Amino acid sequence: MSLPLPTRADVLAAAPRIARFAIRTPLLESDRINDACGMRVLVKAECLQPRGAFKMRGAANRLLQLTPEERARGVVAFSSGNHAQAIAYVARALGIAATIVSPSDAPAVKLASVEADGARLVLYDRVRESREAIAAAIAAETGSVVVPAFDDAAVIAGQGTCGLEILEQAADMGARPDAVLVCTSGGGLAAGIALALDGAAHLVCVEPAGHDDMARSLAAGATVANEPGVRSICDALLTQAPGDLTLPILRAAGATAVTVSDADALAAMAVAVRTLRLVAEPGGAVALAAALRGLAPKGASCVAVTLSGGNVDPATLMRALDQAASPLEAGNL
Amino acid sequence: MSLPLPTRADVLAAAPRIARFAIRTPLLESDRINDACGMRVLVKAECLQPRGAFKMRGAANRLLQLTPEERARGVVAFSSGNHAQAIAYVARALGIAATIVSPSDAPAVKLASVEADGARLVLYDRVRESREAIAAAIAAETGSVVVPAFDDAAVIAGQGTCGLEILEQAADMGARPDAVLVCTSGGGLAAGIALALDGAAHLVCVEPAGHDDMARSLAAGATVANEPGVRSICDALLTQAPGDLTLPILRAAGATAVTVSDADALAAMAVAVRTLRLVAEPGGAVALAAALRGLAPKGASCVAVTLSGGNVDPATLMRALDQAASPLEAGNL
Repeated sequence: MSLPLPTRADVLAAAPRIARFAIRTPLLESDRINDACGMRVLVKAECLQPRGAFKMRGAANRLLQLTPEERARGVVAFSSGNHAQAIAYVARALGIAATIVSPSDAPAVKLASVEADGARLVLYDRVRESREAIAAAIAAETGSVVVPAFDDAAVIAGQGTCGLEILEQAADMGARPDAVLVCTSGGGLAAGIALALDGAAHLVCVEPAGHDDMARSLAAGATVANEPGVRSICDALLTQAPGDLTLPILRAAGATAVTVSDADALAAMAVAVRTLRLVAEPGGAVALAAALRGLAPKGASCVAVTLSGGNVDPATLMRALDQAASPLEAGNL
Repeated sequence: MSLPLPTRADVLAAAPRIARFAIRTPLLESDRINDACGMRVLVKAECLQPRGAFKMRGAANRLLQLTPEERARGVVAFSSGNHAQAIAYVARALGIAATIVSPSDAPAVKLASVEADGARLVLYDRVRESREAIAAAIAAETGSVVVPAFDDAAVIAGQGTCGLEILEQAADMGARPDAVLVCTSGGGLAAGIALALDGAAHLVCVEPAGHDDMARSLAAGATVANEPGVRSICDALLTQAPGDLTLPILRAAGATAVTVSDADALAAMAVAVRTLRLVAEPGGAVALAAALRGLAPKGASCVAVTLSGGNVDPATLMRALDQAASPLEAGNL
C-alpha cells in the first residue's frame, strides 16, 4: 500500500476546479421516505448532474489536470457507461479526443450519449474480453492517457466533492447524518466521500447481491474479487474488485458494506419516481434501497444516501414502475 | 377590476414565510436541450417540491396567514390534485382539518396522496357537477375557509416566489432570460411570476390545445372561458377560465400565450426523463414542450421554463416513454 493516496485537501482543491462542469446537486428530503425508514433520509440527487451521474465530478477533476501535451494525445477510458459519458462530455468541452471502451451489453442510452458527444466507441464482450487490456492497447498504440473510472487519485478527489456538499447541505437543513450510504462498485465515490467526511459520519458501501467484492475485501483486509459471471440488473456496479487506492482509503475510514437485491433496486427506483420525481438507474438506486430495507447502521437517526446515475433504458424503468408492490412500497411510497 | 391585486412586495414577503414548506428548487440547464432549442433553456425543477409541484408555495403562503380562528374552522379546497396535495400537506403540518374536492377522474396517485395526508376527500363528476358549488356548500355547512387554487392574492404571491428564484439563480449562472415560459391553467403561477419579474423578462403562458382560455382572454382583454367538454391529457390544466386576479395581473404585465398539443407534452416528458432525469406530468411539461417546439418569443437567446408538477400515473409515464420518436426527439433528446 505504498501508493500515494489522495487526501481531504485534494477534495477541497477539486471543488472550485470542477464547478464549470459539475453542479451543486440538491440534497432532498421526503417525509414519506423518512416515515418508511424511521429516520431522516437525505437524498443527494446526483442524477441531476449533466449526463446523469456523479461521474462528472471525477472526470472533470482528472481531465482539467492534464498537461497540454497530454490533452493533445487524447484520453481513453473503459466504462459501462456513466464514467464514459462524463469523460466524453468533458473531453469535448476541452477539445480532447476521447476513446471509450464499453461492454457491448451496456444500456443503449449510455452508448448513444457517448457517441453523441463525439467520442470514439470501442465495444467489447464483457465475459470474454478484458477492457483493461483493450484500453491499454489503445493507449500504447495512440499515446492516449488512460483515465480510470475509480482507481485514480484525481478521480477519487473529484467524486469526494459530493461528500463536501452533503456535509454543508445537511448542516443547512439542521441535520447531521450519522452515516452516508453510497452506491459502490470500484469504490471511487465511496472513497472520495470518505475523505470528505473525515470521520464526521460512518461510511456504508452499498453493493448489489453477488457483487459484494467491497464487503468481502473490507472484511478480509485485502482485495477479494467477485466470482465471475454473476449477473445483476445494476449494470453500473459490475466491477470485479476494489481498487488499489479505494480499498485502503475505505479501510482507513472504517467503512462497512451491505448488499441489496435486484428487486430492492427496482423498488427503490419506483420510490424515487413516485416520491422524489427523480429517475435513477438500478445501480444508482441501491443506496436508497438499503435505507428502505433498514440496512442503515443500528441507532442511526439520520442518514444521507447517494442517488446516481440516472441513465436507464425505458424498458428497465417501466419494469421498475410495473412490478407488483413490494414490501418496500408500503403506504404511499 | 377593483379587486386589490397582490404586488411584488407580497411576493418578497412570501419568500421567507414559506421556507419551512417549499424548497429552493434547482434551475437546471442541459446542453442537449439548449442545442435542440437553439438557445439557453433554464429549467426550474419545481417537480422537486414536496408533493411534486409548485403549488406548495401558494398553499403554504395562504395557510400560514390564517388567523387562529380560521385554522380552527378548517379549510376546503377544490383541485384536480396538485393544489389539493399541497393543501393537505401544509394543513396536516399545521394541525388544520382539510377537505379536498377533486374530480373523480383525477390521477390515482394524486388522490392517494391527499388521503395519505389525512385530508377528507370529496369526489365529484367533472362534467356534470360544479366543484365551486360543492366547495361553497361545504364551507357554508362547516364554516371552513375556502382556499382557491389560483384566484387568491396570497396564493398568487406564494407562487411568485418561484419567479424570484429564477431571477436570482439565472444571474448566478450568468444568464438573463429574455422570457419565462410558464405552465398555465388558472394563471396563479404565471401571475405570481409576472409580479416577481416586474418586467425583467417577457412572460409567456403555455396552455394545452383546446384549453387556451388564457390566450383568448389576453387577446380579448376580458375573461373568455374554454368550450366545455374538450379533453386533454394535461389533467392539471383544465380550469375553465382565468381568474379575476390573475388575468388583470397578466394583462398589466403584457403577457402572451401559446399552446401545445398532448403529443408535445408527452414528448417533453420523455425529454425530461432522458435528459434531466426528472419526472413531470403532462401539464407540468407544457412549458418545456413549448421551448422544444420553438414557441419562445422571436429573438430570445435565453428562456426559463417551469417544470411542474411531477405526479403522473405509471401508465401515462410509460406512454410518454413508449411513444415513437417525435420530431422533438431528434438527436439525443
